[in-house]
Amino acid sequence: MRCSVLQFTPIFRDIDANTEAIVALIASTHSDLIVLPELATSGYFFLSRDEAAQYAEPVDGEHVQAIVNAAHEHGRLVVCGFAERDGDALYNSAVIAAPDMPTRTYRKTHLFYKERFCFDEGDSGFFVVNVPHLDLNLGTMICYDWRFPEAARTLALRGADVIAAPSNLVTELWPRVMPTRAIENKVYLAVANREGSEENGGEVVSFNGRSMIYGYNGDELGREAEIDPKQTRAKSFNSINDIFTDRRPEFYA
Amino acid sequence: MRCSVLQFTPIFRDIDANTEAIVALIASTHSDLIVLPELATSGYFFLSRDEAAQYAEPVDGEHVQAIVNAAHEHGRLVVCGFAERDGDALYNSAVIAAPDMPTRTYRKTHLFYKERFCFDEGDSGFFVVNVPHLDLNLGTMICYDWRFPEAARTLALRGADVIAAPSNLVTELWPRVMPTRAIENKVYLAVANREGSEENGGEVVSFNGRSMIYGYNGDELGREAEIDPKQTRAKSFNSINDIFTDRRPEFYA
Repeated sequence: MRCSVLQFTPIFRDIDANTEAIVALIASTHSDLIVLPELATSGYFFLSRDEAAQYAEPVDGEHVQAIVNAAHEHGRLVVCGFAERDGDALYNSAVIAAPDMPTRTYRKTHLFYKERFCFDEGDSGFFVVNVPHLDLNLGTMICYDWRFPEAARTLALRGADVIAAPSNLVTELWPRVMPTRAIENKVYLAVANREGSEENGGEVVSFNGRSMIYGYNGDELGREAEIDPKQTRAKSFNSINDIFTDRRPEFYA
Repeated sequence: MRCSVLQFTPIFRDIDANTEAIVALIASTHSDLIVLPELATSGYFFLSRDEAAQYAEPVDGEHVQAIVNAAHEHGRLVVCGFAERDGDALYNSAVIAAPDMPTRTYRKTHLFYKERFCFDEGDSGFFVVNVPHLDLNLGTMICYDWRFPEAARTLALRGADVIAAPSNLVTELWPRVMPTRAIENKVYLAVANREGSEENGGEVVSFNGRSMIYGYNGDELGREAEIDPKQTRAKSFNSINDIFTDRRPEFYA
């Protein structure tokens, strides 16, 4: 199957224009799995809950549904970040949509910096969806989740072949760590990281792009790559060792 | 404080010569913390329990005690791999010795390849020792433990400032992962990896050296470096985030 990570640069607060651009990208990207950045419909750098709330919508809201419909119409699996409203709660979420499965929403577990002033901590946990037409088990994490080995580990232990990681990364450290997330779990990792800068309240954040699909040996495969999810399922690497059955959880804190 | 990782190449099965070389290295290395490779007294590539047992000794055995005595005499903290016998049990262990603390032994948790035919799985777990004269909290893991993020994570959560990693590494993957172990936990990591090859039963294993001290940002500091363990103790990296208090263990598998 073919995978693409799209280095989309959202316009801060222009949810209509961003959604239109995302739908056009889904239509024109001929890959089975398409990963877009974190908060791709709204932009990122909100400073307060009230501000984020203006651009948040439920998963059945019109902008999210336009993305889901594009995934269904074009027969693609799409993972795309958006600001989610659920009653009074607000989440930094990613919608996961494909024609042959129920739409799911991952809510970011580990909140970075001023996201803490805007969003609730995610309560979805790390889950894996099976995508029948691709014979794929997909896990999702968002941006700062990268820093916690437990995030990718949990997804892999729950059966993920591929981890999609919508991101708005700002640190220089992540490209040194992402290959490890692939290697230590023997999974593919598809990081869609946005470019550009946003200013709010006199503070500027700059996102550093470098979107990348990592093979299960940590190799950089580019932003568009053929991947074979089934290759990740045997976790043995010689006649004796297996990186999952060799684990000894009784000794882990 | 000063740290050294010694890329010692043991002679397979020559425990007297290896111990003599190790003692000489301890005497001539003017560092506070000295890390030597895995199974440094015996060599590595045993194929059976009977074979390993010939070179295994209790922690109060003469060869291990020669190393402990050298640490005490020269006022150094030494971490050195050896084959340990404890009653009928055999472990791939590391002795941890300094003048002002009780000698401790870490027993390798995750056994690699034919070590499974030679040694018992370690039962010491991942522990941290406080070394008063260095104001240092030291954790130890051995070689293949690198592959499990839970190993370094457990040591860091238990307060390690520095992780010593006696190793006999053969894969090309580890140099891509070790910086992550430092970054994700904000700890120093001192990897002493041997060189050379060993043949047994018609099979050859080759060890790939590249011993390295990693700074807590994953930087390569060389085989001898000044380090400041106290710098690792604050796990925050901006005014809001802290890589330990941001953890959400209720969502980890």
